[in-house]
Amino acid sequence: MELLTTNNVWMMICTALVFFMHLGFAFLEIGLTRQKNTLNILFKNIFIITIGLLLYCLVGFNLMYPGEFNGFLGFAGFGLDAPLTAEGTLDLAYNEGYTYWTDFLFQGMFAATAATIVSGAVAERIKIVPFMIFTLIYVGLVYPIAGSWKWGGGFLDEMGFHDFAGSTLVHSVGGWAAVVAVCLLGARIGKFKDGKPQAIPGHNIPLATAGVLILWLGWFGFNGGSVLSADPASTSLVLVTTCLAAAAGGVVAMLTSTAMYKNLDLTMFLNGILGGLVGITAGADVVTPTSAIIIGAIAGLLIVLAVSFVDNTLKLDDPVGAIAVHLVCGIWGTLAVGIFSTNPEHSFITQLIGVLCYAGICIISSFIIIFILKKTVGIRVSEREELEGLDAHEHGMDAYPDFRLNEH
Amino acid sequence: MELLTTNNVWMMICTALVFFMHLGFAFLEIGLTRQKNTLNILFKNIFIITIGLLLYCLVGFNLMYPGEFNGFLGFAGFGLDAPLTAEGTLDLAYNEGYTYWTDFLFQGMFAATAATIVSGAVAERIKIVPFMIFTLIYVGLVYPIAGSWKWGGGFLDEMGFHDFAGSTLVHSVGGWAAVVAVCLLGARIGKFKDGKPQAIPGHNIPLATAGVLILWLGWFGFNGGSVLSADPASTSLVLVTTCLAAAAGGVVAMLTSTAMYKNLDLTMFLNGILGGLVGITAGADVVTPTSAIIIGAIAGLLIVLAVSFVDNTLKLDDPVGAIAVHLVCGIWGTLAVGIFSTNPEHSFITQLIGVLCYAGICIISSFIIIFILKKTVGIRVSEREELEGLDAHEHGMDAYPDFRLNEH
Amino acid sequence: MELLTTNNVWMMICTALVFFMHLGFAFLEIGLTRQKNTLNILFKNIFIITIGLLLYCLVGFNLMYPGEFNGFLGFAGFGLDAPLTAEGTLDLAYNEGYTYWTDFLFQGMFAATAATIVSGAVAERIKIVPFMIFTLIYVGLVYPIAGSWKWGGGFLDEMGFHDFAGSTLVHSVGGWAAVVAVCLLGARIGKFKDGKPQAIPGHNIPLATAGVLILWLGWFGFNGGSVLSADPASTSLVLVTTCLAAAAGGVVAMLTSTAMYKNLDLTMFLNGILGGLVGITAGADVVTPTSAIIIGAIAGLLIVLAVSFVDNTLKLDDPVGAIAVHLVCGIWGTLAVGIFSTNPEHSFITQLIGVLCYAGICIISSFIIIFILKKTVGIRVSEREELEGLDAHEHGMDAYPDFRLNEH
Repeated sequence: MELLTTNNVWMMICTALVFFMHLGFAFLEIGLTRQKNTLNILFKNIFIITIGLLLYCLVGFNLMYPGEFNGFLGFAGFGLDAPLTAEGTLDLAYNEGYTYWTDFLFQGMFAATAATIVSGAVAERIKIVPFMIFTLIYVGLVYPIAGSWKWGGGFLDEMGFHDFAGSTLVHSVGGWAAVVAVCLLGARIGKFKDGKPQAIPGHNIPLATAGVLILWLGWFGFNGGSVLSADPASTSLVLVTTCLAAAAGGVVAMLTSTAMYKNLDLTMFLNGILGGLVGITAGADVVTPTSAIIIGAIAGLLIVLAVSFVDNTLKLDDPVGAIAVHLVCGIWGTLAVGIFSTNPEHSFITQLIGVLCYAGICIISSFIIIFILKKTVGIRVSEREELEGLDAHEHGMDAYPDFRLNEH
Repeated sequence: MELLTTNNVWMMICTALVFFMHLGFAFLEIGLTRQKNTLNILFKNIFIITIGLLLYCLVGFNLMYPGEFNGFLGFAGFGLDAPLTAEGTLDLAYNEGYTYWTDFLFQGMFAATAATIVSGAVAERIKIVPFMIFTLIYVGLVYPIAGSWKWGGGFLDEMGFHDFAGSTLVHSVGGWAAVVAVCLLGARIGKFKDGKPQAIPGHNIPLATAGVLILWLGWFGFNGGSVLSADPASTSLVLVTTCLAAAAGGVVAMLTSTAMYKNLDLTMFLNGILGGLVGITAGADVVTPTSAIIIGAIAGLLIVLAVSFVDNTLKLDDPVGAIAVHLVCGIWGTLAVGIFSTNPEHSFITQLIGVLCYAGICIISSFIIIFILKKTVGIRVSEREELEGLDAHEHGMDAYPDFRLNEH
Repeated sequence: MELLTTNNVWMMICTALVFFMHLGFAFLEIGLTRQKNTLNILFKNIFIITIGLLLYCLVGFNLMYPGEFNGFLGFAGFGLDAPLTAEGTLDLAYNEGYTYWTDFLFQGMFAATAATIVSGAVAERIKIVPFMIFTLIYVGLVYPIAGSWKWGGGFLDEMGFHDFAGSTLVHSVGGWAAVVAVCLLGARIGKFKDGKPQAIPGHNIPLATAGVLILWLGWFGFNGGSVLSADPASTSLVLVTTCLAAAAGGVVAMLTSTAMYKNLDLTMFLNGILGGLVGITAGADVVTPTSAIIIGAIAGLLIVLAVSFVDNTLKLDDPVGAIAVHLVCGIWGTLAVGIFSTNPEHSFITQLIGVLCYAGICIISSFIIIFILKKTVGIRVSEREELEGLDAHEHGMDAYPDFRLNEH
């Protein structure tokens, strides 16, 4: 009872920290985009966290954790169904690490994250109503079904695939959809001139920086809570590997970027931290601190190369670098488990199979959803709306009405 | 001992989260008002949290928890008086959920909230010194005396009135004073033209949004800590009902507002979340998750209607919607206990009596305080000061001196 | 085992809160300086936290806690070296309050703070690369060696010197280096006109205010975690003394400043809170709440006097008041232990000796580092760079590109 109480306290705190990541994502996304679309991005983020929780309550939790199932798709019924004792009180024998309610809420806070990742990549030109429809389906159905394959005890879990806190299950799930959405949506007006990518600077770097630090804080809960108890050895190791990978990712991205572009680029520094965090997420519980530094460092290097590759080679317009951070480093982190894990049962091949399975379901499902939306209601705002800003057109409000602004 | 340690850890974390709500309030209030009064609002908020803690230490704690008393007014003496063992160390037998120090600090963090709610409603035209005097009396005396009626074991507690974390004891106590203050103070210049309310847009929507997310985070502690221990079943249920009500409040307010005004209004979305949070606060421990969604949803609907009613019918100028959020949803949440509680001893009538008792003490006391201030030192700044901004006149400083600003 | 789990949960949460202080510092520093140097300050802060953790992992932890050593300088070897059981799992007998990993991470979060304090004092005119070199040496070597004298069990610990959470070991260590750096660096252009200090207003007061509230929140972990366990009596007393000192510091600084300058100065209010926090840090565990209020109140008074003294008498240019807050109140707090401690073994003389020892090592080491940097690579940006802003020159980016700005 004492131990359950302690475990449950830890899990509730981690739940609060993961919830707070949504402010981190919001600050990061608005900070790295233009002021004229700020309110629109905030609206999307607030929509995702509220509707995400309600959907996870209605269907998601029972899709993701269906109990006994065929390993591919299961559903334990609509709504929540707390286990009760004979006296009608909550059955605390549910799990020694947390109660049923904590389990639901912790997982529910994760669910919205995948859509938030997409939100950043499609910022500044997507119509809000189709994005809301996409969110409903992707958060309500795709994320929990895909998640059940591993965390729900599905076929990838059976195979020995390891993804501790979601380099793949959360970050790549968002990242793959981001790629698909960006391809179907096209680049922002002015992003490419004669085929060359143009910098479109973010309008509020202090908030972007705050966003990254808030996300890092949230990762204490994202990874720390994924231990699913307060076990002292595991939780504290996870926090150490998480923080060291973040630090290494940031420093290496900063150094690489400075070597390549001769400027001390803060946004690359920040994205390096995020890359390190995403990279360590799959294996934070099974690698040593030294391995964590290496995983983070490679993630930091990958960030700089991937941002350039997405921009210059793929010519995709991803305003906040979501593809580099969440997809590339998510894949890297998942594969890194196969290289650095201290558990000999983890294998590179199994990790690769896991990555490919998630690539499959995410690319296919997000393509179907967004393609249908494109062909029916349309997904892109009008040229005039894009130029004048989504805030004025979709919301009839400004984010900063008392400030004099430059138009971009 | 182990259990007390765990309980006390939880209560200390909740204390920290409730403290952090003051940043949430500050961001929300400045975000929804004009830049020229930003510094003034921040000053008031910082004043409230600092002086509030000191007053609660000096008199508040012992007014609110006087021990054995007549049920209406009691006082256990000035200052803190920690129970000691024979050896002179802190007596841990004080309570199995927390130590004496934690008890004081958790309750002290609550105390300042009531005045902060008023601060938002009277923003942009109240003189700062009278507001500070009002704060001293309302936080130092009225809040703890009113609180003693229920949480101190007073007559409403005896009657079976239930207000888990303060829909009435905190939010309505602030809300009633807000109504009184707004009536005595009058509307801001330009708020009503030919009797029609004019929109005066807030100057920093990102900070307002951050404020709401920080407040939501803080509510993990506000409601979670009101369990007064880390009991796993109760605390985790409370977090689930709290978050679901917030989500439902936001979504319903957004949909209602969109249906009524044909725009996707972010501030209404945000106020809906707050309304859901205030609404669930009285009964978070005694309702099911499904009931929590209904309570939050109704709060979200009430927010949109109440904001319109305050603006168009009552013609009261409440810049941040404090009356709708804290008073209307506070009343609703308190009455909702009488409808949705799983505890058959809770009755709608008793809840209504509680609401009326607090209406009585709050309206009368805040009227007396503010009316006397109005007739003596005056409560409203000069027209010139209001037009040019309180920051320049009361503080001689600007909040954003490097930015070019529009005057409103 | 249960108790270790609970203790370790508390320590991990405190670690997270101390980490979050870096956002508080970042917001405070940019808020109190001009927009043209915002990105530069953020870059420095992000550099400090990332490189600080890596350095603490590489050398700092084992310099600060070398185990058995001569009391002045010891080193337990590069990298981390977790104690293992015979079975190869983490040895939980390491400490009953936390695991080895938690110990490292909690201390690592402290390490970066000292350099951050300097960062504020030298803002707006220091070259970034020399500052980065200074950080490497000061955080990597000076801070842990100095820290070992007390917290590592060195000669000051043997003498009975008491510095609970680092009024001296963290805040003064940063403060002394700030004085040295400011002296060697000189004032910003325009700070002194005909020998009289000119106000250079900070560009974003909301973020500065948020910074202080975030720092206060972080202090729950900074002081609360310095108990090194979740012991209910100690941790809750520490939170009470910490918060009361903060409140008293703020209120007294506000009153003093209003009496002296006839304006309600928000930044002095904020610095008073920080002064109270720094002042209580050395003795938060050994003073009564009443003493904490007195210590905080005196810190609040000292802040106002010290800011004036630094400005008008010493004619040092410290843009954020770091010397007054961290050095003056750090010294005061350390000496206050000798006056107010409930432990009769604490003596004023020993406290004074401790202060002087740290003055010695910090002044000498920071002078050597910065003087060499000044004579070799140079530490000050060019006049043109200073006037046009460090963001444009060192980073080629703006913090707020969409906003129209005034030049200062």
